Amino acid sequence: MEKTAVLPIPTVKRFPSYLRILHAFHEKGDVYISATVLAEELGLKPIQVRKDISYTGLEGKPKVGFEIKQLIKVLNHVLGWDNTSEAVIIGAGNLGMALARYNGFRAYGLTMAGIFDNAPDKIGRPVGSLTIQGMDDLSSFIHEHRIVIAVITVPASEAQEVADFIMGEGIKAIWNFAPIDLKVLPSVALQRTDLATALAVLSVKMQNKLESEEEDI
Amino acid sequence: MEKTAVLPIPTVKRFPSYLRILHAFHEKGDVYISATVLAEELGLKPIQVRKDISYTGLEGKPKVGFEIKQLIKVLNHVLGWDNTSEAVIIGAGNLGMALARYNGFRAYGLTMAGIFDNAPDKIGRPVGSLTIQGMDDLSSFIHEHRIVIAVITVPASEAQEVADFIMGEGIKAIWNFAPIDLKVLPSVALQRTDLATALAVLSVKMQNKLESEEEDI
Repeated sequence: MEKTAVLPIPTVKRFPSYLRILHAFHEKGDVYISATVLAEELGLKPIQVRKDISYTGLEGKPKVGFEIKQLIKVLNHVLGWDNTSEAVIIGAGNLGMALARYNGFRAYGLTMAGIFDNAPDKIGRPVGSLTIQGMDDLSSFIHEHRIVIAVITVPASEAQEVADFIMGEGIKAIWNFAPIDLKVLPSVALQRTDLATALAVLSVKMQNKLESEEEDI
Repeated sequence: MEKTAVLPIPTVKRFPSYLRILHAFHEKGDVYISATVLAEELGLKPIQVRKDISYTGLEGKPKVGFEIKQLIKVLNHVLGWDNTSEAVIIGAGNLGMALARYNGFRAYGLTMAGIFDNAPDKIGRPVGSLTIQGMDDLSSFIHEHRIVIAVITVPASEAQEVADFIMGEGIKAIWNFAPIDLKVLPSVALQRTDLATALAVLSVKMQNKLESEEEDI
């Protein structure tokens, strides 16, 4: 079998929306869905949808389209959502604790297996179903549980140091919530989600809209 | 005074990083900072930093640069972080509750003032310092508290309906965590943060890295 082409990121970003539509159509009893219908539901062009799905290797049937159950299966597989990974959260501040309590990642095959912090008064405290552990225990935890994904929620000033440490312990993917651009090894996947920046953008967009409404007053 | 030019979004996105550096330099006792130093700290070009700061209207002094305290002040002002806004969270699922418990937005002038859901078994339950209220009370709450910002954490299938309703009640900014592209009025600011998509992208990036390491095996 030929090697699959590397998935373009814009395609990956559309897959969760495809899954949402597919689940909705599956629930109302549909068995097949065409690229055209999928495209209409999401305001995309059918050719885009066909191209995206082609990366999964799944082929549609002429006239009827794709078997919904099968397409759900391959998309989940391509996204890695069909096998559960365990992640550690590093930094038990407000955001780290909120993410530890949030069970919503399970639907996407991610379980938060541990949460770590270096503040003595935090260690031992319960957060959802977890207990905050000290940074001294992080290395052994990563190796024992074969953890490859880490969620960083420490302050920006500590994030690079934490990243360097966990990469040394074999972490292969970092989801960075600290408001800083981390430098990572070429072999390590990095994704940044910055809530402060998202809020800043929203805030300024709103001000711009309000100002343009007032116009020349 | 001339009207300030509309802030470009990439500039807005860099402002939180500027603030972080400025706070760090302020804490260690520095009074002035040059665009060059700020640029170095963030791996940007000095000309970019100067251009960004020019949008605030603040001018640096030759040779010494910008007064740190003043620059912090104007950046916070431009971002709207110096006056507190209250927001409502709509959808008391895992994510909505996590955001309600997360106090980290206060540093950016945002307080979560209420959380709403339509599930009878959720209404009345405490979440952090808030109590989940029914959707029937949303309209009066928005008007009484003069809320203009809403955080949407309902399922994708309900998000547009919720958005339409709150825009009718005068909401001017929507932070959408539901995995769907909302249609909003031209006068309403919209920002989307999609954790599922961020996770999907991280997951695929990691797979691609692992595959490229295995190469032709």
